[in-house]
Amino acid sequence: MVNTCENVPYDFELERVISELKKLKAKRVLIQLPNGLKKYARVICSKLASLGLDVYLSASHTYGGCDVAENEAKLVKADVVIHFGHTKYYEPKINTIFIPSYSKVKLNSNTLSKLTSYLKKHNFEVVSLSAVIQHIPLLRSVKEHLENNGIKCIITPIGGYCRIPGQILGCSYEGAIKINKEVNAHIVIAGGLFHGLGLGLATGKTTIILDPYEQTFKDITEYIQKTLKMRYWKIFEAKNRQNYVLIIGSKPGQYRPSLVNLLADRLLKRGKNVYRIIANELSVDILRNIDCKEYDVYVITSCPRLPIDDLYSFEKPVLTPGEALMIADDAYDKYIFPW
Amino acid sequence: MVNTCENVPYDFELERVISELKKLKAKRVLIQLPNGLKKYARVICSKLASLGLDVYLSASHTYGGCDVAENEAKLVKADVVIHFGHTKYYEPKINTIFIPSYSKVKLNSNTLSKLTSYLKKHNFEVVSLSAVIQHIPLLRSVKEHLENNGIKCIITPIGGYCRIPGQILGCSYEGAIKINKEVNAHIVIAGGLFHGLGLGLATGKTTIILDPYEQTFKDITEYIQKTLKMRYWKIFEAKNRQNYVLIIGSKPGQYRPSLVNLLADRLLKRGKNVYRIIANELSVDILRNIDCKEYDVYVITSCPRLPIDDLYSFEKPVLTPGEALMIADDAYDKYIFPW
Repeated sequence: MVNTCENVPYDFELERVISELKKLKAKRVLIQLPNGLKKYARVICSKLASLGLDVYLSASHTYGGCDVAENEAKLVKADVVIHFGHTKYYEPKINTIFIPSYSKVKLNSNTLSKLTSYLKKHNFEVVSLSAVIQHIPLLRSVKEHLENNGIKCIITPIGGYCRIPGQILGCSYEGAIKINKEVNAHIVIAGGLFHGLGLGLATGKTTIILDPYEQTFKDITEYIQKTLKMRYWKIFEAKNRQNYVLIIGSKPGQYRPSLVNLLADRLLKRGKNVYRIIANELSVDILRNIDCKEYDVYVITSCPRLPIDDLYSFEKPVLTPGEALMIADDAYDKYIFPW
Repeated sequence: MVNTCENVPYDFELERVISELKKLKAKRVLIQLPNGLKKYARVICSKLASLGLDVYLSASHTYGGCDVAENEAKLVKADVVIHFGHTKYYEPKINTIFIPSYSKVKLNSNTLSKLTSYLKKHNFEVVSLSAVIQHIPLLRSVKEHLENNGIKCIITPIGGYCRIPGQILGCSYEGAIKINKEVNAHIVIAGGLFHGLGLGLATGKTTIILDPYEQTFKDITEYIQKTLKMRYWKIFEAKNRQNYVLIIGSKPGQYRPSLVNLLADRLLKRGKNVYRIIANELSVDILRNIDCKEYDVYVITSCPRLPIDDLYSFEKPVLTPGEALMIADDAYDKYIFPW
């Protein structure tokens, strides 16, 4: 039973939230949480309502910092959006407080020792270290443990949409790319395969996921190679097709008109036809619903993870912007991920 | 194979669209179609693109005239939205051309003769006649056929969100309610059960669906009675619960702040707690994701069909605004649908 912030496994920094709300003289707030954290919404809403604030909760999917509920906030005349679970991605038109929502989970030394042995066994002498936003607090202790055991650890620098040293996002690995040549392998602290896969596709190097929920680590290099082969297969399928649909995202941080225009120009130059379709959410069902014989290839400019994860099994090639650029430039040697 | 407008089974009135676009000096347009009609999008887009217009297609769900893609249109800087399949529901902030998209399907006289016999057998001497927007053109011939056979037919008057005589919407039956006392039964020309169910819940009278796709008719009064019992069961379940969540819709025509405030006031007066949650789309998954032990009852103020159709099987009572008002007013004799 979750009643107070103390027994919630994430740090929602409610004292800081309240202090920032006071500074902004906020009266009405809209609370936004990623789907996995929505179960803790009542803890936050109750606390803020008890202070006399007028509290609205957003039920909509919240996929990232690209997805601030500006439209909803504007509609209900909220003074501030409190966006949990992500850092700033773009400049919202409404006051927005970003709360990373650090996980309180720790990594035990047994897990770290096993990881150390694995790295030593494979002669990984220098590794990069990154984390999804929730696990940023774990970076320091992992670095300490590894360096005490003779493995040099570089925390990925900031860059792109990564605002905090060590942070990676599903669509942004600039920090890891910057130091790619200096390391033998990348280690990312994250649950699941999602961020590790992106990191591997972006760097092309050995990638190890250190999962603090499961207290395990996993070298997913083979999985990345398999995915990369599938991506090349889709690029190959798309290469000689004629009709390209550019999917434009309407979420405020996913609307990329310059990328759309750049892709359109380059694809037109390569003799392709280009169609423009706009979508807020995108699923296989939604894609199937607009699909027709005139469309051959879909390029998703909203979020580069949709082609790789959600739309992977679609009947026609669904490409990331980077993959479409490879075709536009007729340059296949270097896999470009994500942009 | 669908290539030209001539062999598309709906009338998209492209000549009128083009003439209105010329009047508006439009250069960039956003095309919107309900999901069932999206398969014909290419016919429309190709025609307009061939005239030199800059054409964007919306892939998003389009549930009704309440759901004009204003946000998407604004983002891509479209001059005009061309919204197919519905009539005007509210005043969009962007130039919008509404094209009803009349179906070209006809009703054969054999079907109408069988319907006449059924009406005579049950002594339905005076009936109302209405249609979903796609089948409005069939009203006159059905009326003629029935009146030639001695059955008085009243085409439902305009009212509420129904802009055309005979039109009904999933959430608006004002025309039928106006003439409810004058008729023995309601006949609605529509495919599926959706509109017939709404008509029956709103009027409480015998309801017959005349389906031109299937060339059949169906008296669904028993189904309506069964649904009504289930609705009362949900109202009964909700009645003594304490914590009410008002779901606010963020689609431009589904945002109803006065209704939300009215419901909040009346429920508070009845001693209930009220929470406010905003959502753009609403499905069982989204509802489950925000659900927690503190919430007892959900009231959907965005669209009154969600509780009855999509969220019917949710574990806790999910009510329409009309049903919540019955509880707030402690008045259960008359079922209120939808508002």
